[in-house]
Amino acid sequence: MVRHVVMLRLKDGPTPQHVAAVADGLGRMPGLIPELVSYHLGTDLGLAPTNFDFAVVAELQSADGFLAYRDHPEHQAVIRDVILPLVAERVAVQFEC
Amino acid sequence: MVRHVVMLRLKDGPTPQHVAAVADGLGRMPGLIPELVSYHLGTDLGLAPTNFDFAVVAELQSADGFLAYRDHPEHQAVIRDVILPLVAERVAVQFEC
Repeated sequence: MVRHVVMLRLKDGPTPQHVAAVADGLGRMPGLIPELVSYHLGTDLGLAPTNFDFAVVAELQSADGFLAYRDHPEHQAVIRDVILPLVAERVAVQFEC
Repeated sequence: MVRHVVMLRLKDGPTPQHVAAVADGLGRMPGLIPELVSYHLGTDLGLAPTNFDFAVVAELQSADGFLAYRDHPEHQAVIRDVILPLVAERVAVQFEC
């Protein structure tokens, strides 16, 4: 199993509209991409001032499953149309578990 | 439930010794900190050149549980003695799920 973790910092901070746009866009992925075993996302709770604004934790059966998710046209459309215009910084890690 | 996600970039990159030191130090936390419901950590698989080197995904029952984990003396000792000397950058998010 591969765990894929992403954190985003939004350009204008975690405004409700921008957070909702990212959450709504990515939240459609589990219904569209069968390689996703589990998919959790959410807005930072504000417990530390240096935190990023948003995180995604996805589980996939394999590295090939991750690549299928990454490159899926619906995912790429959300990245292009919703995420890239709103995001200042993105960090990611994929690890076996 | 609160999910706590951390990513680390190591100063000298993911050398086996440094990765093992971080993994061994943090890997002791589930046996020491009862607030941890689940705890997964691992080294980046190298699927993207901009990725960070290491990630931790922890689940806790509540924000108070997260604070108990964050401030636990054994955790603080690992951060001080193992992680801070090796880490160039750290990003984190806590979110409800």
